[in-house]
Amino acid sequence: MPEFAAKVCVLCGGVGAAKLLSGMVRAQRPKDVLAIVNTADDTQLHGLHISPDIDTVVYTLAGAVNPQTGWGLANETWNAMDALERYDGITWFRLGDRDLATHLYRTQRLTQGANLATVTAEIAASWGLELQVIPVTNDPIQTKITTPDEGEIDFQDYFVRRRHNVAATNVRVAGAQGATPCPGLLGALDNANIIVIAPSNPIVSIAPLLAVPKVRPALIRQRHKVVAVSPIVGGKALKGPADRLLRELGHECSVVGVAKLYAQVASTLVIDEVDAHLAPAVQDAGLACVVAPTIMDNIDKATALAQVVLNASHST
Amino acid sequence: MPEFAAKVCVLCGGVGAAKLLSGMVRAQRPKDVLAIVNTADDTQLHGLHISPDIDTVVYTLAGAVNPQTGWGLANETWNAMDALERYDGITWFRLGDRDLATHLYRTQRLTQGANLATVTAEIAASWGLELQVIPVTNDPIQTKITTPDEGEIDFQDYFVRRRHNVAATNVRVAGAQGATPCPGLLGALDNANIIVIAPSNPIVSIAPLLAVPKVRPALIRQRHKVVAVSPIVGGKALKGPADRLLRELGHECSVVGVAKLYAQVASTLVIDEVDAHLAPAVQDAGLACVVAPTIMDNIDKATALAQVVLNASHST
Repeated sequence: MPEFAAKVCVLCGGVGAAKLLSGMVRAQRPKDVLAIVNTADDTQLHGLHISPDIDTVVYTLAGAVNPQTGWGLANETWNAMDALERYDGITWFRLGDRDLATHLYRTQRLTQGANLATVTAEIAASWGLELQVIPVTNDPIQTKITTPDEGEIDFQDYFVRRRHNVAATNVRVAGAQGATPCPGLLGALDNANIIVIAPSNPIVSIAPLLAVPKVRPALIRQRHKVVAVSPIVGGKALKGPADRLLRELGHECSVVGVAKLYAQVASTLVIDEVDAHLAPAVQDAGLACVVAPTIMDNIDKATALAQVVLNASHST
Repeated sequence: MPEFAAKVCVLCGGVGAAKLLSGMVRAQRPKDVLAIVNTADDTQLHGLHISPDIDTVVYTLAGAVNPQTGWGLANETWNAMDALERYDGITWFRLGDRDLATHLYRTQRLTQGANLATVTAEIAASWGLELQVIPVTNDPIQTKITTPDEGEIDFQDYFVRRRHNVAATNVRVAGAQGATPCPGLLGALDNANIIVIAPSNPIVSIAPLLAVPKVRPALIRQRHKVVAVSPIVGGKALKGPADRLLRELGHECSVVGVAKLYAQVASTLVIDEVDAHLAPAVQDAGLACVVAPTIMDNIDKATALAQVVLNASHST
């Protein structure tokens, strides 16, 4: 069983988590940071195993991510996708030519019997990353979204194909109950100085991590050192459907709603300055509240936010 | 069961067969031509199902093949392969970015439950081909090469990775005995006016076709209308390891050796003018012999050769 001697564990979805991590590895030695990444939005397409959140984290930390989209590679070409249109193939999930190499490699290695954690470590190392990146589990887990008109659909069908422009009446993580946490993950949570819940979608990025057996109990056990960063700022998600999903699933779409969602697993919530007036309500939900600029539109702001998070854990 | 009302059935490997077919569809209505293609060099790589001979036939007939190599697409880019080098991935089997789309599409459709014949027809139609292209079987068959130093290796390992630069002591087609001919194939052979054995490698391209149950007996039954074109010219293969393989496996590396290999299944052998002096020996092997230019270095020569083949069947 691998041991991760990380001082900082970060529970991650995609873009928001990647940005915070890019600051975290400046605020903290990269080797001391462990990114635990959601895989419930992994998908099998064209026979390839695609791990969108892992790739977003790796590409971002490598400085190779497309800065316009926050996912995929910068300076990408799309010749394979363009050619796929000849066959009327599936092109709504855009795979750039260079990005394809990642999926080709991952799939080949999985076919050879390597597990996802091993392949992820290989990919991260190939990009020269020093922080450690692991999937929450090596087992297949899949977020499923129930819509009023079409019943249950796959996450990428919801997220990419329909651009999360449909209502959701339920979200579940298929396979989670039978999944095993990535080897070393639970020990890392127990031994870390701080566990960070990144400003990722609570419903479709963080909830799947917590749905893997023993992960949520580990956070509850270590709640005193868990610091969450709100992905909701001024009542809106900075990116993606977090705001809409929160409302549709009956949660308050605010930092208070986030606080209530995380109250059992986190002791501190970092909220944006625009939400400062809600700090008392966050505290009423049972969390310490830290107010800080949370919009990471450049690396300095991401680093500053990472430092706020690290300080928050020290102060509680 | 589909019925193929083809007047001309062509047993095909890759490049040589594709060239003859490109002439055949000018000498004969394309709709009357059925290409029955070897799939024993199909390979699973990066999770993708790759059918090199089918793709060579389709790309060539579509006028899209890379004229320098005879395989792959013209004006191709290699960004995925270049990016795969970062991971130290498998790059010896070169997959161009646009070519990748074909493998992505094929794999996706196979994953959805379509069989290889259906997917091949879809791909051929997408390129606007009028001739019909089918795999010899929808079942997996795989050419295996025994080498003195490494035992049995996969065909593409032999052919591409080692550039067929190792000795072969045995060749077998794994899976052939349990394979079923592509639906419609046997009827097409019985009903065609002519069956052509393309100038493909007798050992690794044509033998796998004949190894699928009921195919060889169908040819024996229809031997009177089977015309083979020798892939050996002046004692050498125009492309690939046919000459070397023939010698290593104990066959005569000449048109006479080819005649002896095909004596049971073909009634006529077309040989190149440089081998005219061997026509009597071909006849001694039991085949009618037609001497003609067989080197298809342009479309006119390919068309002329196709016409020679069609005439050969009429004259016998």
